Amino acid sequence: MVQDRVKVVYLVETPYSLRRAAEVIAGEQSTGTFTAVPGETDELKGKHGARVENIVELETVDEPSLPGSKTPPGHDGLYRRGLVTVSFPLHNFGPSIPNLMSAIAGNLYELQELSGLRLVDLELPDAFAARYPGPKFGIEGTRRLTGVSDRPILGTIVKPSIGLAMEDLQRIIMDVSEAGLDFIKDDELNANPPYAPLDLKVKSVMEAIERAADATGKKIMYAFNITGDIEEMKRNHDLVVKAGGNCVMVSIMSIGLAGLAHLNGYSEVPIHGHRNQWGMLTRSPLLGFEFSAYQKLCRLAGADHLHVNGLNSKFYESNDSVVRSIQACVTPMHGGYATMPVVSSAQWAGTAPATYAATSTVDVMHLAGGGILAHPDGAAAGFESMKLGWEAAVKGIPLEEYAESYPALKRAIEKYGKG
Amino acid sequence: MVQDRVKVVYLVETPYSLRRAAEVIAGEQSTGTFTAVPGETDELKGKHGARVENIVELETVDEPSLPGSKTPPGHDGLYRRGLVTVSFPLHNFGPSIPNLMSAIAGNLYELQELSGLRLVDLELPDAFAARYPGPKFGIEGTRRLTGVSDRPILGTIVKPSIGLAMEDLQRIIMDVSEAGLDFIKDDELNANPPYAPLDLKVKSVMEAIERAADATGKKIMYAFNITGDIEEMKRNHDLVVKAGGNCVMVSIMSIGLAGLAHLNGYSEVPIHGHRNQWGMLTRSPLLGFEFSAYQKLCRLAGADHLHVNGLNSKFYESNDSVVRSIQACVTPMHGGYATMPVVSSAQWAGTAPATYAATSTVDVMHLAGGGILAHPDGAAAGFESMKLGWEAAVKGIPLEEYAESYPALKRAIEKYGKG
Repeated sequence: MVQDRVKVVYLVETPYSLRRAAEVIAGEQSTGTFTAVPGETDELKGKHGARVENIVELETVDEPSLPGSKTPPGHDGLYRRGLVTVSFPLHNFGPSIPNLMSAIAGNLYELQELSGLRLVDLELPDAFAARYPGPKFGIEGTRRLTGVSDRPILGTIVKPSIGLAMEDLQRIIMDVSEAGLDFIKDDELNANPPYAPLDLKVKSVMEAIERAADATGKKIMYAFNITGDIEEMKRNHDLVVKAGGNCVMVSIMSIGLAGLAHLNGYSEVPIHGHRNQWGMLTRSPLLGFEFSAYQKLCRLAGADHLHVNGLNSKFYESNDSVVRSIQACVTPMHGGYATMPVVSSAQWAGTAPATYAATSTVDVMHLAGGGILAHPDGAAAGFESMKLGWEAAVKGIPLEEYAESYPALKRAIEKYGKG
Repeated sequence: MVQDRVKVVYLVETPYSLRRAAEVIAGEQSTGTFTAVPGETDELKGKHGARVENIVELETVDEPSLPGSKTPPGHDGLYRRGLVTVSFPLHNFGPSIPNLMSAIAGNLYELQELSGLRLVDLELPDAFAARYPGPKFGIEGTRRLTGVSDRPILGTIVKPSIGLAMEDLQRIIMDVSEAGLDFIKDDELNANPPYAPLDLKVKSVMEAIERAADATGKKIMYAFNITGDIEEMKRNHDLVVKAGGNCVMVSIMSIGLAGLAHLNGYSEVPIHGHRNQWGMLTRSPLLGFEFSAYQKLCRLAGADHLHVNGLNSKFYESNDSVVRSIQACVTPMHGGYATMPVVSSAQWAGTAPATYAATSTVDVMHLAGGGILAHPDGAAAGFESMKLGWEAAVKGIPLEEYAESYPALKRAIEKYGKG
């Protein structure tokens, strides 16, 4: 790509022509094409103007997707959709994620000339890579820390999410460690609540982890939810690291990309990136962001792991969209920035084959709650069934057939496979 | 209000009953009512469960607003809308804005049981006020610094937004200072770009401001856009303060509420809060956030000024929505947290009467670009016309009538009043 421009692809819906809409977008977010301001010379526009690079026409619709658009005189009643590529001169804002966002998103979502706008792709010059070092651990570092090389990292989530007594939390950690799991995480609802302050939780959890590791020889990776205000997050992180913890988790939308980049400036363990609140930015099909674009910013800012939902989850998201997110996360970027997609929600051994078939990667973290812990023969069998599910997937053997030889998988299918 | 619970009102759309949808919301974001997890005792639910406090039924519709909802068996084809109030125990997350967001927004926007969800109101216990000090200047401090006591703070925006040479920027500042304006701000597209680094801009701008102040006796308030990564923002802020600057501006969505609260921890001048990118969270009517709810978090986090668009603006937003935002910003909160709503976009003297009539307040910052600078008799007359517009509004005298006695207003009406 041209190294001095940021390229953005928008899905646009407009009562105007796509060309006109594209020019309004380019003008609004750079030199203001449609408002004559003294001092706005042709030279200034040439140097600082955003440029419409490409327009691909898609369907037309009869009704606007979003309210508040105005129609041109003699409007034919149609709203045109298309993919519009706009490029922005990097020197307008420099390699700064916060200022990039003001430029490429900014006021665009509010324009009357648009009845729909969704940012669907994003190409950044290498200057961003020079400014933002990205994940310190990523896929390779997470594999090293967990000792898992050739299959997904398999794990679970602490439940109940809220209100667990410390001794119950310790028991859960002992149980899942003994079952052999690679990973366990706090729920995103549980960070540093007054009823169970993080320092107490870290102490209790690490005690249980070390005790279990003494017994099993394997230290489970625990993602402590350190989400909080900027300075609190630093204190939380240091608390975890000092106690020998090996992963921290943050709600990215709660701390912002700037908060994530700041954490990445001092973090010493992998950052597990939870994307709760993301639905707000993406569920309206003609508004907001596509995750395949947004995840690039999360990776630049330092997320070692990134939640992407799961196939056949309990959420609204389509499997296609989940697959696009996984593929996007494992696509190389600036020669680095490897991040591990985290597949979760209503997962079990049986969701492995479809996930692998659609993505051809085992570089995922696969989290299951009931899908592991509620296995009829216990958590160890649940964990075993997940491994077997992925083995079958990678070997291309139908799950039912593979289960003939493996009771843990067979029993998992009996329990979860009827849905 | 009950001081140990956070109360949230959601606008909900669901193919289920509103009661069922409300219970799914409460369960998902606290103890998980609908999934039986070992350890989820009645005692735990009583202590940590979110509670459905109220349900107000609204209309039903034939089509879901958002994609991906599932329908119950025997669905009657209707989607029910209503206002659902849910309360959350404060001790689940404590007075932490980042963790509050994970609780009250979290995964809710992705639930299959909902075909629409919008957070429309929010009531926070005083514990938040104890944790977050809020704006240091607010309305009163901004009035003190600008010397304007009984009318809106009137100002403008540097244009062209990008690419201005330093000597042109200086000339603009001299001009608007001589015209008597109270305030001028950087465009949100212009922070610390490579072609005009902030240190150079601060130096040039302050030179012009001081020179103009020597001539006029009045030091204009200039909001320097310091938006950037967390540590860069601190450097930028310190640069502005050290040079004698009297206001900093940030794009709140770019730095996040956590970034804003961090800035507020060390800021020595008013924080001008720009809300570009906000459209993403609000333009879909059955998704995201209502600004009257979101602005409470911005005020807690320390925004002294908050952008709210303007009446009859160039954006999609309805006047009603703008009025709700202004009213929300000037409504007292926890006995403090005064923030000044910033009214902008396509503003001129003639937008004052409707703004005042709908809000009954002069505690606003009223920004106009062309509405001041392009006045046929110059910027001083433009500024004068804005003052006159507000005088007429407060006195309840029709604009045209008031203009009989004041040529600056009359000429403004001739130029801008034909739209």
